[in-house]
Amino acid sequence: EYTASERSSRGGVDFPVSVVLPAGGTGERTGLRTPKQFCTFLGRPLISYTIHAFERVSWIQRIMVVVAKENTELMTDIIQRYQHTKVQTVPGGSTRHRSICNGVLALGEDGEDKRPEVVIIHDAVRPFVEEDFLYKIVMTAKEQGAVGAIRPLVSTVIATTSEGYLDHTLERAKYRASEMPQGFTYDIIYQAYKRCSESDLEFGTECLHLALQYCGTNAKLIEGPPTLWKVTYKRDLAAAEFIIKETLSQSACVITGPSLHAVTLAGALWKAFGTFGMELDVVPDLLGNNSNFLLKENNFIQLSVNSSLSEVEAILWALESSRVLLNSVVVIWVHLRGLDGLAISGTMTEPAPLIMELASAAKPRNVLLFGIQLHQPNDLEQWERSALRVAEITSALIRERNPALVGQLLQA
Amino acid sequence: EYTASERSSRGGVDFPVSVVLPAGGTGERTGLRTPKQFCTFLGRPLISYTIHAFERVSWIQRIMVVVAKENTELMTDIIQRYQHTKVQTVPGGSTRHRSICNGVLALGEDGEDKRPEVVIIHDAVRPFVEEDFLYKIVMTAKEQGAVGAIRPLVSTVIATTSEGYLDHTLERAKYRASEMPQGFTYDIIYQAYKRCSESDLEFGTECLHLALQYCGTNAKLIEGPPTLWKVTYKRDLAAAEFIIKETLSQSACVITGPSLHAVTLAGALWKAFGTFGMELDVVPDLLGNNSNFLLKENNFIQLSVNSSLSEVEAILWALESSRVLLNSVVVIWVHLRGLDGLAISGTMTEPAPLIMELASAAKPRNVLLFGIQLHQPNDLEQWERSALRVAEITSALIRERNPALVGQLLQA
Ligand SMILES: [Mg+2]
Ligand SMILES: [Mg+2]
Repeated sequence: EYTASERSSRGGVDFPVSVVLPAGGTGERTGLRTPKQFCTFLGRPLISYTIHAFERVSWIQRIMVVVAKENTELMTDIIQRYQHTKVQTVPGGSTRHRSICNGVLALGEDGEDKRPEVVIIHDAVRPFVEEDFLYKIVMTAKEQGAVGAIRPLVSTVIATTSEGYLDHTLERAKYRASEMPQGFTYDIIYQAYKRCSESDLEFGTECLHLALQYCGTNAKLIEGPPTLWKVTYKRDLAAAEFIIKETLSQSACVITGPSLHAVTLAGALWKAFGTFGMELDVVPDLLGNNSNFLLKENNFIQLSVNSSLSEVEAILWALESSRVLLNSVVVIWVHLRGLDGLAISGTMTEPAPLIMELASAAKPRNVLLFGIQLHQPNDLEQWERSALRVAEITSALIRERNPALVGQLLQA
Repeated sequence: EYTASERSSRGGVDFPVSVVLPAGGTGERTGLRTPKQFCTFLGRPLISYTIHAFERVSWIQRIMVVVAKENTELMTDIIQRYQHTKVQTVPGGSTRHRSICNGVLALGEDGEDKRPEVVIIHDAVRPFVEEDFLYKIVMTAKEQGAVGAIRPLVSTVIATTSEGYLDHTLERAKYRASEMPQGFTYDIIYQAYKRCSESDLEFGTECLHLALQYCGTNAKLIEGPPTLWKVTYKRDLAAAEFIIKETLSQSACVITGPSLHAVTLAGALWKAFGTFGMELDVVPDLLGNNSNFLLKENNFIQLSVNSSLSEVEAILWALESSRVLLNSVVVIWVHLRGLDGLAISGTMTEPAPLIMELASAAKPRNVLLFGIQLHQPNDLEQWERSALRVAEITSALIRERNPALVGQLLQA
């Protein structure tokens, strides 16, 4: 995401921009009963990720979600549950074009002075669009009137005869796949829908084509990143989940406490985590400035030399009081055994039942708690071996975010 | 896969069929250094899955893998390691067409009487092709001379101007994406490559086009399943891994031993597993006819009322002596605690160190061993709850097949 200074150095977006998000698809190609846009990933519906991709962009005002009547209630629930603030809904039409048209008209209903200058049209099932690409789309739309994202063709396109034989092949270099998002000045998309025929509304698929035919505007085409792809088939659900998990597991915060042993382990962990492509921030506690991690980090690793789990309880409590967890947060308690004074005196708490209990309570609040125990290593070599083992298990737990395994106490 | 009688009722394939598999891609679109076809999934390179898809088809004689010089050694290792028996390799050319041409010529080198009648051309990065579709391709190729798999277009295809603006959009219904596999009679593909120009070999991409232009054969087009897609982008690697994992986790074999408690748990598990979409076979042991499971099953759940792990050791030994494990096998030891006579007499073995040790020894042999403990339930309701918990953890372990978690003793 851009910092304020980067945006301002590029001139910023100083005119009103809104989004039309058709979400009327029925999902027949995934082979699932739930339409793709409402399939959940780590417990959150796909469309909520897509909405978030626009909501986090400061210069986007409104997101008009066009939703089929039978899904209106579901959509209202999602908006409330995930605290979407820029979203309005409007009923869908019988075809994609009628739905988009409803969205465009709804954006204009509050009078000419409240109309957006540029409208972005996107798909609910393309959740990974990024601010820098939206910026390009919007600036180009403002300048050219119409703009669309394209991608190179993966397969050769062929024309078929009516009997199902090859007629001819297209020269791949001259063609592109038309993707989303697309951008239009409000005037052009409004006029295109106003002037187009019933047949266009019924059978057409391409907004860029309407802009060309009815407003004489040749859309500018911009190549987008591969992540713009449309979640279409069942395999795409797995691909989308992978990308979401990858996004959530880019970094972790390690809390050491004051113990020298824990600080040593953190150092070794920091080294070992390089192998797993995850960035570690090591802090003694989550107080003062470090409390910022509670607001943004998705993964916490609490190192501990005692078996009481009190530090973990403190993190769970702090998370609950500092933010609403729209995505799952992973908390891993790493217990350095053999350093516990209580253990030596023979009254060590058995942590297994307690962590299972804490994990069960945390799971409905979207916190996934796991435990790892290791014996205090004897020498430097053993420290490094242990750290590598902890890093291996920790990164696997963070990446998989598997709710079936919460509360388990694993051995490093 | 077809049974012998199904194949024979459809006339069978009673003529020689061979495959050309170009594997020369460089993988630039995944953003990875390793070419996609050599990326590993659960420890096995993608191309080995693709080769296996052809090797398991009884009526396919030879698979000619066309491989870039720098990857010849790697390919030879893969053939040996995964015991591929129908594969020969031939050096790739500087373009896709030159590579395929090399493969076609190599298939004809042993004299006219040994030439295949039909040649299938496929991609190394499309591992999920199935026998019934190959059957259609081959029978149609024999009848029509040339045939290709197609898929509907996911995106609208547009023609661009040289300045990067929309020129026109194609009517989606008239076009298709050309996919693989394709099939040709040997004569047609041989003549097409013999007659085509240097420019075709250098810049062309579509074998069907050469058959049309140089042999006057309009290829028949057959719509294939979505699983024919080409592993192209990084997200496709995740999608492919998902499909491979799904294939490996469709069923599991539960071994109860003679204990009545274990048999009761197996019954409850069988009920609970319905929820997780996995099929369970429950057997008392792996002797007699049941030893067939050792040859084909990828997942074993050993129920046990004692902590000695002797039954698990027996499975590990039996697996090792009965088959080469090309794919990972999951073995889960489910220990019903509180039923152990030894435990009551106070001399219970602590199973945690032993299972970790067994798991470490089994991992290099492609067996992933995990443990689950549960306390003997008191009543029927508790039995069902426990079974659901075991089913949840078990199915998660089987689906994820995560090597970082082997040897762990989880609590149900
Ligand atoms: Mg849609
Ligand atoms: Mg290739």
